[in-house]
Amino acid sequence: MLFRKILYPTDFSELAEVSKEYVKKLKEANAKEVVVLHVIHPLEFSLPQFDDPFALDVATIYAHIPEIEKAILKKHEEMLKETEKELKGCGFSVKTIMTVGDPKSEIVRVAEEEKVNVIVIGYHGKGIIERILEMGSTAKAVIRDAKCPVLVVKKVED
Amino acid sequence: MLFRKILYPTDFSELAEVSKEYVKKLKEANAKEVVVLHVIHPLEFSLPQFDDPFALDVATIYAHIPEIEKAILKKHEEMLKETEKELKGCGFSVKTIMTVGDPKSEIVRVAEEEKVNVIVIGYHGKGIIERILEMGSTAKAVIRDAKCPVLVVKKVED
Repeated sequence: MLFRKILYPTDFSELAEVSKEYVKKLKEANAKEVVVLHVIHPLEFSLPQFDDPFALDVATIYAHIPEIEKAILKKHEEMLKETEKELKGCGFSVKTIMTVGDPKSEIVRVAEEEKVNVIVIGYHGKGIIERILEMGSTAKAVIRDAKCPVLVVKKVED
Repeated sequence: MLFRKILYPTDFSELAEVSKEYVKKLKEANAKEVVVLHVIHPLEFSLPQFDDPFALDVATIYAHIPEIEKAILKKHEEMLKETEKELKGCGFSVKTIMTVGDPKSEIVRVAEEEKVNVIVIGYHGKGIIERILEMGSTAKAVIRDAKCPVLVVKKVED
């Protein structure tokens, strides 16, 4: 079962939507289970100094951030729930994970922990802006570091 | 049909063997057709100067290289035929293509020309030597430039 259990990392961007559509199509290739992962970068929040900021769970984060950031976090959780609902509606068994840390290492870590068969990740086509800004560096690092196969879905600009 | 027609580029390396095994498994995901592509870099042969060395076909190459290099080319062709036989034995419809040029641009070009659904390509796991030598740069460029999805198969060193 090459695609039985999929890791679908999402930052809720347009590109993540493109890869979500691909994940849905993987049903025809016997995909059964989707782990939806949303990683929040600590820099998005005004976190106090911790010894190991990348090991924080969401509950710990909640305890240390002001109200306005709690509202943002809540929004992320809602979007994750919406994604879960949508994929369940397609007949997948779905698990959602939200962590705080460095997206690329969290994606690789969760892929191993959850023993997924494949990671489905979006990647921008070549664009001069993207190249200069080194966008897509998360995808690149995941492709390099993951131990499982990575299915790279392209969003090609016309 | 997400994986109906696959482009499988091979340089006959150990890594290409790993991705060939993955291609075979894609039968369970309804893969039907495999385009096996072997790209010969012009630097492998003592080619005379042409206006556009990347547009050479194999016949032209044959006409311009000495006997010893013809023997090497012959060997490449035999290996390509062996791969074809092996994949046909697995029930695939197989087309083989051998071109001379820059591997990364040839892979992207053939993927578009053959209208494949996916490119299956091997990629080394992180290794300090590979990082320094920038190995895997063909895979990286294909991932960046291809318009179709790219399935990256990992060979992880223990």
